[in-house]
Amino acid sequence: MHSVDLSEAEEFFRLHAAENPHAADPGERFSQALIEFGRRGSFSHTIEELEFGAKVAWRNANRCIGRLYWRSLVVRDRRHVRDADGVAAECVEHLRIATNAGRVRAVITLFAPDQPGRPAPRLRNTQLVRYAGYRGLRSVVGDPAQADFTRWVESLGWTGKGTDFDVLPLAVETPDEGVRLFDIPDDAVLEVELTHPELPWFADLELRWHAVPAISSMPLRIGGVTYPTAPFNGWYLGTEIGSRNLVDADRYDKMTTVGQLLGLDVDDDRSLWKDRVLVEVNRAVLHSFDRAGVKIADHHQESSMFMAFADKERRAGRVPHAEWSWVVPPMSSSALPVYHQYYDESVQLPGFLPSAGWTPPDDRPDSEPTGCPHHARTGA
Amino acid sequence: MHSVDLSEAEEFFRLHAAENPHAADPGERFSQALIEFGRRGSFSHTIEELEFGAKVAWRNANRCIGRLYWRSLVVRDRRHVRDADGVAAECVEHLRIATNAGRVRAVITLFAPDQPGRPAPRLRNTQLVRYAGYRGLRSVVGDPAQADFTRWVESLGWTGKGTDFDVLPLAVETPDEGVRLFDIPDDAVLEVELTHPELPWFADLELRWHAVPAISSMPLRIGGVTYPTAPFNGWYLGTEIGSRNLVDADRYDKMTTVGQLLGLDVDDDRSLWKDRVLVEVNRAVLHSFDRAGVKIADHHQESSMFMAFADKERRAGRVPHAEWSWVVPPMSSSALPVYHQYYDESVQLPGFLPSAGWTPPDDRPDSEPTGCPHHARTGA
Repeated sequence: MHSVDLSEAEEFFRLHAAENPHAADPGERFSQALIEFGRRGSFSHTIEELEFGAKVAWRNANRCIGRLYWRSLVVRDRRHVRDADGVAAECVEHLRIATNAGRVRAVITLFAPDQPGRPAPRLRNTQLVRYAGYRGLRSVVGDPAQADFTRWVESLGWTGKGTDFDVLPLAVETPDEGVRLFDIPDDAVLEVELTHPELPWFADLELRWHAVPAISSMPLRIGGVTYPTAPFNGWYLGTEIGSRNLVDADRYDKMTTVGQLLGLDVDDDRSLWKDRVLVEVNRAVLHSFDRAGVKIADHHQESSMFMAFADKERRAGRVPHAEWSWVVPPMSSSALPVYHQYYDESVQLPGFLPSAGWTPPDDRPDSEPTGCPHHARTGA
Repeated sequence: MHSVDLSEAEEFFRLHAAENPHAADPGERFSQALIEFGRRGSFSHTIEELEFGAKVAWRNANRCIGRLYWRSLVVRDRRHVRDADGVAAECVEHLRIATNAGRVRAVITLFAPDQPGRPAPRLRNTQLVRYAGYRGLRSVVGDPAQADFTRWVESLGWTGKGTDFDVLPLAVETPDEGVRLFDIPDDAVLEVELTHPELPWFADLELRWHAVPAISSMPLRIGGVTYPTAPFNGWYLGTEIGSRNLVDADRYDKMTTVGQLLGLDVDDDRSLWKDRVLVEVNRAVLHSFDRAGVKIADHHQESSMFMAFADKERRAGRVPHAEWSWVVPPMSSSALPVYHQYYDESVQLPGFLPSAGWTPPDDRPDSEPTGCPHHARTGA
């Protein structure tokens, strides 16, 4: 559990006042928070503070290439929702609002922070939408990255259909109810079936992906207060699906299958067959999302947008922070302007914190924090 | 000018003794160096120390993916060569030994360190072999990265043929002779004409590249002594030529030309035409070097070799250091094992130092140090 930090609060009130002409005087606001803190060991952000804090957390998300539109984040204040049914329903509603019939919007839903003696509800999922992974004797059906989580929800009574693309249930934990599972209604999860602009056999692979990458395992830290349950989404960057989720050896691992179908010599890495496969899978992803009218970025466009973001930040008198290895897409990177810059890699607040170990014991991520709010180096 | 550092010397003697059972006792060796230092303000490394130090500098080269064979470095001790003619001749000889009829060998040639009151000879070139860049009214013939250096050697009396691939002269500076220019004999520069395994028109582009990437602007620091002139080479990684030198917008900039010849829609980045061009140019580079019998690495193989290097280092009880953004190749990076690791990025000695500002005033590199000893993120 993260404790309240009053000096961080004071700094945040100053930032809020500096960037919002109609905000309260930060000294007065801090005094008020101090009184509240003295009375009950915590204090509440106003809705305006919460909105501003969540947006700045996106602006500060070092690992995210897609921050140009940080001001457009839709912030949903659901601090009053504390029961599992309510949390699950709000997550489903989050997905509907974010999906927006394909015109994907960036959305964050904030549930309550922990209070002294009263832990807040938590989501055990790493993302709102993930596909189950079923470990068999020789291979995995579905997403291997979710095999441990899948086994865990199965131990709690969930049963999937056993396909490669079964959407996992939401696992909500509250102090009163323990962990409860909730299936996400089919019509809340928009998915895109993948086809290729020129290769008809690509459709026979029966690949698909969902429209909304919504990270649900990273606590949000605003003004000295941690919001442990704050699922948020942007829209996909094509390479997350086309270079990582479908191709990584420890994910859907389609490299060799597609290479063979392309008629390439998959025994000779020096023929650059893998590089060719990546081009074609990524073309299929962008083509399919475009055809389905579902918003997705490509790495060329998104790299330019990031440069625009960095320029805008500098013009506003701020230093654009970024982790190079995360904001540079994993494909044709030297052909992208984002590759040719160095960035200040230090972490700033308000911001998203590394996943807080709220996944089941055998599904913990590696020691390195995973997850960029909107476009992750590790895929999303 | 870099000063002698005695504590660094002491540490180096200990390292040398620890890794070389037949080395002198480090305490005695240090006493000896102290006496020499007291007498003349400097001290000399033995040939064995120099060899070991140069090899470990390669092992420590954070930005280099190709370090598996660090023990095989050919170390040429040319500390006694001090006149411009001699330095130029030794650089040409370096190229001949490194080229080795296409079976490229890693070589370093060490010239004298600065002595009190007696500066050592220096090379003004950033690499032993670079192509001239001639700035015209609208465009550059040759390599734009060398346009300033080219103008400078022209001001000293050099005249190139005006083609896209004129090898620049060596510019050697000595205290007695000032700067003198030396043309490199044609037969000391092995070059490969580029063709594509399937696309006959590729040859009509009349592209070529030289076989040996020999960095000549990075001082070598061994045991507290700086060797300002220490040209060294490995062999090329294909992407250095195929993704960077020939394609970067501020280099030969062939992206659009090749895209059009491939019949791609070069107005639509989202079609991933640039990604396709990169695959085909890189295939041409690897194919052409292979056909010519000239050693070149591909990024898949080199990434695996780097993993072997890191393993070997760990087994030897050392931590493999690396700068992620430099060792990860700029193409299909997530398909390479080197992408999926984090590294200790701290700098170790013995090592190569950033280019020391010994290029002409208007040809200085950006503030960031450039140049990985063997495979550079910025191309080589």
